[in-house]
Amino acid sequence: MKLITYRQNGAEHVGALTEDGTGVLPLPVPDMNTLIETMTLTDLRSAVAAAERGSALALSDVELLAPIPRPRQDVLCLGMNYLAHAEEAARYSADAFRKERPVAVYFSKRVSEAGKPDGVIPRHAGLTDRLDYEAELAVVLGRTARDVKAADAADCIFGYTVLNDVSARDLQTGHKQWYFGKSLDGATPMGPVLVTADEIAYPPALEITCRVNGELRQQSNTSLLITSIGQILEELTAGMTLLPGTIIATGTPAGVGMGFDPPKFLQSGDVVECAIEGIGTLRSTVV
Amino acid sequence: MKLITYRQNGAEHVGALTEDGTGVLPLPVPDMNTLIETMTLTDLRSAVAAAERGSALALSDVELLAPIPRPRQDVLCLGMNYLAHAEEAARYSADAFRKERPVAVYFSKRVSEAGKPDGVIPRHAGLTDRLDYEAELAVVLGRTARDVKAADAADCIFGYTVLNDVSARDLQTGHKQWYFGKSLDGATPMGPVLVTADEIAYPPALEITCRVNGELRQQSNTSLLITSIGQILEELTAGMTLLPGTIIATGTPAGVGMGFDPPKFLQSGDVVECAIEGIGTLRSTVV
Repeated sequence: MKLITYRQNGAEHVGALTEDGTGVLPLPVPDMNTLIETMTLTDLRSAVAAAERGSALALSDVELLAPIPRPRQDVLCLGMNYLAHAEEAARYSADAFRKERPVAVYFSKRVSEAGKPDGVIPRHAGLTDRLDYEAELAVVLGRTARDVKAADAADCIFGYTVLNDVSARDLQTGHKQWYFGKSLDGATPMGPVLVTADEIAYPPALEITCRVNGELRQQSNTSLLITSIGQILEELTAGMTLLPGTIIATGTPAGVGMGFDPPKFLQSGDVVECAIEGIGTLRSTVV
Repeated sequence: MKLITYRQNGAEHVGALTEDGTGVLPLPVPDMNTLIETMTLTDLRSAVAAAERGSALALSDVELLAPIPRPRQDVLCLGMNYLAHAEEAARYSADAFRKERPVAVYFSKRVSEAGKPDGVIPRHAGLTDRLDYEAELAVVLGRTARDVKAADAADCIFGYTVLNDVSARDLQTGHKQWYFGKSLDGATPMGPVLVTADEIAYPPALEITCRVNGELRQQSNTSLLITSIGQILEELTAGMTLLPGTIIATGTPAGVGMGFDPPKFLQSGDVVECAIEGIGTLRSTVV
């Protein structure tokens, strides 16, 4: 199923897309976090079947929001998790992004409100001169996870979405820890849909791309993660309890703006399209 | 007012301490986050006055929890924010904690459940050999903050509490970004009370200490922050919207375990007491 959060007549709702992708089946939950916490896949299928007996809304008549507009906790992120990206980052700043990395780099970004599909990315001119894009596969957990073994990780996954880990490189490296440069308002567009895990073979091997103004900048496959989803969950849950609704952005492939010589940072008016096979295209305009 | 969250007969409640500190006046809100979001200081005073007309519970009859047991977002933290601590950290690992730092270091720690006063700190043996304490003044915001000037920062503050930013140094430095080493389960004891901002002159100039098994390890004053509370809020809110209930841990003074030669990391059975003048003592036992 492809789940969405949408706004209609000023109110937020959760729905599932119809099979042809043009209709919305409203679901009887107040928000996506509640859906994730309270419904099993079987419950969800029943709710969708019930909604199918009613009438669908036209997707074009509603305002699509990020699938999880207000994550309950910060988004957990992986840095340097595709080999070619680790190499380009080290070229950009050997100091901030050293290449040798036997271990995963975990950080978080605060997302008080996730950016919506076909929404905007604030340019934050005056605060940053080096705004950059990062197309990522985001994993959303469906259950409480503690001491999970890599082999059992798939059982914890509710679904997948596309996330643009927009990064202010000057703030990211200038403050040593990446948090502030990752956490600016509007720096986390997400969507367009949340695809339930049953629709994507595990581990996901999906083409991931990012285009800026139509120019292909990133192109890779989510099978090429250095630290796999299973390894991430095993490592983190050896010490941390991860709650249902946790969002893990699994890292970005090569081709970000700082990887070019000269760098190609985002400017007002740029259109950024992050796409993952089987999930969809997350389009944002820099303003 | 000194506000607390407590458990009685299996249910969580919010209350205010009586003037002599031995009684609890129950307040009519479901949890501290709701109190912070919905009540003004005037509302709060009225609610306490109303509660005073009823009967107080004995503090000794309830189980004290962290004032905000489940923060709505990750705790926002400052690294290297007291000069003498920046120097000791650089001695421990010049690579991970370089001394020259013209800018604030911001990071976050995930706190799915904050540790309670007189509670435990899990040792996480097998995962870390270098568990360390960090006594910190935590600032809790009372309103949505965006584009706040340092001079107006006090208006945003709801109150203050004591936070122990327990850190697994090997994970903190080994993963380059500090997130995982800061976010282990039970690594954020908080409390014993949340003191409303009207009770503490701004900016806070309070003695802060940490004792381990009675031995004084940290002793400083919260007036010695390198980046002040006002500067923190001005810098962050130039790019980020901070929501009511946001917790900012303002950094720790010198005297953490890694600062000693040889280092004095936490061991099972150790009793850690973080104390701040005017707030109280947060005691935890390592298990």
